[in-house]
Amino acid sequence: MGKTVAQQLIADHLVSGEMVPGEEIGLRIDQTLTQDATGTLVMQELEALGLDRARTEVSVQYVDHNLLQADEKNAEDHAFLRSACRRYGLWFSKPGNGVSHPTHMQRFGVPGKSMVGSDSHTCAAGSLGMLAMGVGGLEAALAIAGEPVYLRMPEIWGVRLTGELPPWVSAKDVVLEMLRRHGVKGGLNRIIEYHGPGVATLSAMDRHVIANMGAELGATTTVFPSDDAVRAFLRAEGREDDFTELVADPDAAYDVTDEIELSTLEPLIARPSSPDNVVPVREVAGIEVGQVVIGSSANPGLRDFAIATHLVRGRQTDAAVSFDVNPSSREIFADLTKRGDTFDLISAGARIHQAGCLGCIGMGQAPAVGHNSLRTFPRNFPGRSGTREDAVWLCSPETAAASALTGVITDPRELAAALGLEWPDLGLPERASVNTDMLVPPLPPGQAATEKLVKGPNISALPDFPPLPERIEAPVLLKVGDNVSTDEISPAGARALPFRSNVPKLAEFTFTQIDETYPERARRAEGHVVVGGDNYGQGSSREHAAITPRHLGLKAVIAKSFARIHWQNLANFGILALEFRDPADYDRVEQGDTIVLDGLREQLPGGPGLSVRNETKGENYALRHRLSERQVEAVLAGGRIPLLARS
Amino acid sequence: MGKTVAQQLIADHLVSGEMVPGEEIGLRIDQTLTQDATGTLVMQELEALGLDRARTEVSVQYVDHNLLQADEKNAEDHAFLRSACRRYGLWFSKPGNGVSHPTHMQRFGVPGKSMVGSDSHTCAAGSLGMLAMGVGGLEAALAIAGEPVYLRMPEIWGVRLTGELPPWVSAKDVVLEMLRRHGVKGGLNRIIEYHGPGVATLSAMDRHVIANMGAELGATTTVFPSDDAVRAFLRAEGREDDFTELVADPDAAYDVTDEIELSTLEPLIARPSSPDNVVPVREVAGIEVGQVVIGSSANPGLRDFAIATHLVRGRQTDAAVSFDVNPSSREIFADLTKRGDTFDLISAGARIHQAGCLGCIGMGQAPAVGHNSLRTFPRNFPGRSGTREDAVWLCSPETAAASALTGVITDPRELAAALGLEWPDLGLPERASVNTDMLVPPLPPGQAATEKLVKGPNISALPDFPPLPERIEAPVLLKVGDNVSTDEISPAGARALPFRSNVPKLAEFTFTQIDETYPERARRAEGHVVVGGDNYGQGSSREHAAITPRHLGLKAVIAKSFARIHWQNLANFGILALEFRDPADYDRVEQGDTIVLDGLREQLPGGPGLSVRNETKGENYALRHRLSERQVEAVLAGGRIPLLARS
Repeated sequence: MGKTVAQQLIADHLVSGEMVPGEEIGLRIDQTLTQDATGTLVMQELEALGLDRARTEVSVQYVDHNLLQADEKNAEDHAFLRSACRRYGLWFSKPGNGVSHPTHMQRFGVPGKSMVGSDSHTCAAGSLGMLAMGVGGLEAALAIAGEPVYLRMPEIWGVRLTGELPPWVSAKDVVLEMLRRHGVKGGLNRIIEYHGPGVATLSAMDRHVIANMGAELGATTTVFPSDDAVRAFLRAEGREDDFTELVADPDAAYDVTDEIELSTLEPLIARPSSPDNVVPVREVAGIEVGQVVIGSSANPGLRDFAIATHLVRGRQTDAAVSFDVNPSSREIFADLTKRGDTFDLISAGARIHQAGCLGCIGMGQAPAVGHNSLRTFPRNFPGRSGTREDAVWLCSPETAAASALTGVITDPRELAAALGLEWPDLGLPERASVNTDMLVPPLPPGQAATEKLVKGPNISALPDFPPLPERIEAPVLLKVGDNVSTDEISPAGARALPFRSNVPKLAEFTFTQIDETYPERARRAEGHVVVGGDNYGQGSSREHAAITPRHLGLKAVIAKSFARIHWQNLANFGILALEFRDPADYDRVEQGDTIVLDGLREQLPGGPGLSVRNETKGENYALRHRLSERQVEAVLAGGRIPLLARS
Repeated sequence: MGKTVAQQLIADHLVSGEMVPGEEIGLRIDQTLTQDATGTLVMQELEALGLDRARTEVSVQYVDHNLLQADEKNAEDHAFLRSACRRYGLWFSKPGNGVSHPTHMQRFGVPGKSMVGSDSHTCAAGSLGMLAMGVGGLEAALAIAGEPVYLRMPEIWGVRLTGELPPWVSAKDVVLEMLRRHGVKGGLNRIIEYHGPGVATLSAMDRHVIANMGAELGATTTVFPSDDAVRAFLRAEGREDDFTELVADPDAAYDVTDEIELSTLEPLIARPSSPDNVVPVREVAGIEVGQVVIGSSANPGLRDFAIATHLVRGRQTDAAVSFDVNPSSREIFADLTKRGDTFDLISAGARIHQAGCLGCIGMGQAPAVGHNSLRTFPRNFPGRSGTREDAVWLCSPETAAASALTGVITDPRELAAALGLEWPDLGLPERASVNTDMLVPPLPPGQAATEKLVKGPNISALPDFPPLPERIEAPVLLKVGDNVSTDEISPAGARALPFRSNVPKLAEFTFTQIDETYPERARRAEGHVVVGGDNYGQGSSREHAAITPRHLGLKAVIAKSFARIHWQNLANFGILALEFRDPADYDRVEQGDTIVLDGLREQLPGGPGLSVRNETKGENYALRHRLSERQVEAVLAGGRIPLLARS
């Protein structure tokens, strides 16, 4: 039987296991991507692993998250990362060079290659026909060290696109439609593969938008075929030689199927505070807006900025609106500037920020409480903007720009009609302003070997990870609901992010968005359990969401279900991730109950079944784990680092 | 006898007193300028004063300091300021419109007018032949309310300029030469007035550079004549009608004189961490640099960015250097972009930031510890960059750009010679890209009267200010050295600045740069004294440096001498500012000594003389105050606000 694009990519990189959904497979990794918010730990892990030199084809360390430099800590991280790149033979993308995802796509993306990245939106590279997955930092470190990446073989979810998008509707609306239909866990344990005649109507950057936010569906990754649009993209980047065609076999079959007729879509918007709270823009039109932000890895393309510019050119954004522009990469910012669009944006009242993630990760441009913020970003989890009681909406650049002009949520079709605007030819350049001078190449091996790591006072060592105890008797210190994100477990934002290299300090922020008393209570409890609902740990790939609660004594999380990357991070760092066999048992456990898990060294390797006793209630619950043998061994050892140290 | 420009300006606005150096004079104020870091208190003061509507010709509230928006507090301040402008009939300059000083000069500066601003660099407007002075927020609030501003008549310090600047030497080097010669208190109680044939060789924006950093000399203000260069500037801004000539009478006489032959100057640089640590660039050439920043109110002109662009165009900044560009106003950023310079800067590796103060006030781009940062900024006080152990150097854009290319401190003349660069014609435009859409005009009175102030949870009320006690018996809680800046008393930077509207919270940062234990000790002491050296309270105009220690119990500061604005702020907020008659007594007092000041209601109005007892040492010291009758009354009442409230 023929293979889908995703199956071809997996087959080409398979080093262990069978391609049967649910079975553990091992994959050879060609490229890695790390960013500063997760990368400082990755580099500390490379050091702990005693790596001499990266063994991938390409490994790139980006600096895009922490660019505010509100104090010396950010710049210290940057210096550490630069030194680690010099030492281990990685590329270093300087601060200001842009967000990892579009930058990587522009400079390093190659159809047919595999990639992991310590960032949940790594999947964006699926736009070029790559198999690209967000993973925890330790997985990325091991990939850099040449180790395979292990995962459960996902189902392939074929989404057939037909027709063509109408004017003022764009790629963002496609992925918002997916979220509207399937929600933030619709993609769990699946690879989304887009196919069908509608694919050809989308540029490679349009596909980036859709692939990027596959992360919000909880998917393992998203893939698109590598076709003429990809060739055109690589040609514009001066890299046509990197093109290879990659399309599904004619008789390929998908495990799950869906279809979107593009011509039927309309402008959509995700209401606060989940990416799947999607409604048509027209249903919420007229609501007042205090801030509009365009940019981020979810809408990074020149086209996305150009269409927004087209709308605001010669006009002025509303007096009560802050109109913020986050260029996504240096190259796109340069092209935007060369076209004259930057001038037009400034003239229309835009605040132009340096190329980077900025507000998307809560590093700047936090909105005022009670003021709606419209963003072309991928996520609107509560508080992620940096504002505790925020009201962030996600939409296309068309909707964002239209709303910036009017000061209220506005369907861009309505505005265009009112202004008599035709759907424009944006006249995008055939060639990009390629400039690689902010990408520092790896040092030659001889020179690299003598490099020293530059560690300022805020770069802590990794904490110790003792083995899992044989018996856990501990209180349920926190019980949370469904879809708790890693932003809620270990927040980003300007207060916490500077401590990403400093686990003891960062731990003080753990779960504080949900319960400010957690860190203190955890420290006193000396061992505890967290109970979660469905899709526990969705969102970003940060392994800090495993390491910092572990540092505070977390032994096990019992939930209805887990998001993929966080589940792996828990296993990697020796925290038991257990699921209720009967979801109704979730309701029987209360915060404060004492939980006993005993005989773990016998129970865990014996199979997925496991029993837990609720001492307080005098009840037992059936649980299951989904750990592979390999993972059981790691969890018992206290995580993969102590396991590797032992061997 | 004829008058100098400064004397003409004072005479034109005199409402009380005699123009004899040292005598208190009252001046009518035509314009005011406030910025967000000080303006939120000013607006709270307008509310406390019960003002109905601004009584000045022009009052503008800028938002330029707190643009990071690391959390909801900044945006909340912006919303409060916008509402206060609507309520009280002020102009509101939106975030992103630029730094107050260049923006005000471009849009509102008028030769012959008087202005006060709650920002120490307000003096920059002296470049247009205005009498412009930095004052505390309460002085600005009273000026908005139509009250005169009172000060001691300063001496007029005539600085005669001859000749012309050589290539690669610019206005920044002129004011650095002044600082090299005279130090940070060389201008105390003086107005610096530039005159002579060399003045005509400097553009209005060049004069802005020099007038701006008159603040670093401690001067009351700086004035330049209003001549053809000013006319050309106003013409470029589309405001030639606002021009009036203003030059010194031929027989004008200066109280103090100095002379600079411009052709003899060379590139200069201020070493860390004082603006007067000035040496020739060549003496420190070759020292490694980790960061270069251009912009700020000290080098705001299009010319300053254009010359830096000229140097880096087609080249790449050093791999180890972060090259940051802070456009100073929206207009200048627009012109820079229109010229193509923004594209060239991006291509050369620049990180472009939104128009505002940013790193100059420690709101972003803090350098790493141990890495030298070269900046075209006005100040390098310790820690002002946001990094506690920073190493900030101040220089011209020419020196900054040259050093960004080489990665080491570089004399631009050397680099130009090495690259074979001629001194360029920058081809600056005749007309600026004037765009006033981000300047929101005052509402009509009827509409304004019904506006409500928008106060988020971080906008505190002003604290109570009880009267000065009759007897102070209190410990010297802190003894500091010379030139302690208001940055050290009440820091700016990303941690503290968001609390500028919240006195109790901001108080926790008081003096922590010098002694982390101060806030806690002060709270426990319930009343205390601070002992200072020379030029106590130099630098910014922030009245927080008086209000927050007062909130913690500060009753009196005894110093060798005071910087002007801070001295006024102390008086405004009911803190006794006392000077040692014999500076040697400073050495006799130790931290921890108990000080007794008794019979204050009799002593203070009786004359400048005053005696203090050091109980611990069993000694008495002769002190003096410089308060006017008006000020004595205010200090005894607990400050000007309780005094006004009483009447």
